[in-house]
Amino acid sequence: MKQVTIHFDKIDQFPNALAIKFQGFLMNCLDEDYVDYLHEQATNPYATKLYHQDEETIWSVSLLNEEAERQILPVLLNLSEVTLHHQESLEIKKITLQELTTGHLLEIFNENDTDNVFTLYFQTPTGFKSQGDYVIFPSMRLIFQSLMQKYERLVNEGYEIEEDTLDYLAEHCQIISYRLETSSFKLHGRGIPSFKGRLTFRIRGAQTLKSYAHMLLTFGEFSGVGIKTSLGMGGLRVETREN
Amino acid sequence: MKQVTIHFDKIDQFPNALAIKFQGFLMNCLDEDYVDYLHEQATNPYATKLYHQDEETIWSVSLLNEEAERQILPVLLNLSEVTLHHQESLEIKKITLQELTTGHLLEIFNENDTDNVFTLYFQTPTGFKSQGDYVIFPSMRLIFQSLMQKYERLVNEGYEIEEDTLDYLAEHCQIISYRLETSSFKLHGRGIPSFKGRLTFRIRGAQTLKSYAHMLLTFGEFSGVGIKTSLGMGGLRVETREN
Repeated sequence: MKQVTIHFDKIDQFPNALAIKFQGFLMNCLDEDYVDYLHEQATNPYATKLYHQDEETIWSVSLLNEEAERQILPVLLNLSEVTLHHQESLEIKKITLQELTTGHLLEIFNENDTDNVFTLYFQTPTGFKSQGDYVIFPSMRLIFQSLMQKYERLVNEGYEIEEDTLDYLAEHCQIISYRLETSSFKLHGRGIPSFKGRLTFRIRGAQTLKSYAHMLLTFGEFSGVGIKTSLGMGGLRVETREN
Repeated sequence: MKQVTIHFDKIDQFPNALAIKFQGFLMNCLDEDYVDYLHEQATNPYATKLYHQDEETIWSVSLLNEEAERQILPVLLNLSEVTLHHQESLEIKKITLQELTTGHLLEIFNENDTDNVFTLYFQTPTGFKSQGDYVIFPSMRLIFQSLMQKYERLVNEGYEIEEDTLDYLAEHCQIISYRLETSSFKLHGRGIPSFKGRLTFRIRGAQTLKSYAHMLLTFGEFSGVGIKTSLGMGGLRVETREN
């Protein structure tokens, strides 16, 4: 899979609103049949995130399977500007490309890495649904459930996750610190309950468990976590350390 | 019950450390037999909180039953300075006294108040224990469980809370926004897992339910919420509005 990161001079609009406009722009650039196909997917094979950083606005698009790479990568790499609906063209300053292969993910899974403390930065509004309701506090179970689902559907092309594995993983994680606040992701005039901030947790247990978590979280930096990751929600950055 | 609030010029030390020193100072001012009695109580009939605000340090002591008022109030009202262990005397700038009667609490309970949105400010590190473990995310159930327990033990002099009432109350509250972060309350060299910040929730349902919650939270501004409120944890301020 690939992550294309596009840098602009800082755009004076809220990231939430921009993320949705950029996603609309992207859909307009793609083949219509493929856009129709995307609309039918339970788990989108791409994710976007948009945020301001220092004097830049950064838009990042992850292509999570081969077909998404084939359809979307050439379009993104050939962009020289972005024209949003009813707005001036935005000049692209820089495009960077990052690759994450399933081979690299397997390497992480097989590594004897001793890092067992993970800090998750929820870079964009992040939300979960559980039993039909929005959840505005993260839990280790919801985080890993979402990552396992995305991983299974997009990488393994399976459709079911192993609930026992999820339970075991969640039970061995302990949240040790956080700084979080609610936010509301506006979409079609509705606000989707969500949160932003950071969360640090420690995993205790077998090496395999730590490596599996590390692999899922590395994938998560591409896939995002939770709901509506194609529209710009759930942007994730991960730091690891030993403890 | 009474709340004595004592103002100092800002003291250049962490509120956590100061709170424990001030509590030690208070115990030294009291009758020894009464201090022994306090040590035996499951629920302390007093609570303290200490925080910096603008150019002041504010120490607040709540006396939650008549005996605590009798034993502690004269001591506090006669203070002109506070001398902490191995430190210079701290001059008191102002003392204010606030009263909350059970009559006033009953008035709140009987009022046809339409406020149903409550914002809780956790002014000092706040923590809960559930099934032996520290809990670092607040939940409406833990908040009201703690307030109901303190209220029952100190005001009603009963010892059991009605679990059904607690469940019903918690189920009708919905957290709508928060900004929270973990903190660690240092005590005897250990850090007690806790959090600080604010949380806003809405109650839906019968007038009685809103009034009961309002009454408990008004009491909570005196009693504090959660564990170790006598040592300065769980300091609570509440704002209400209609929605």
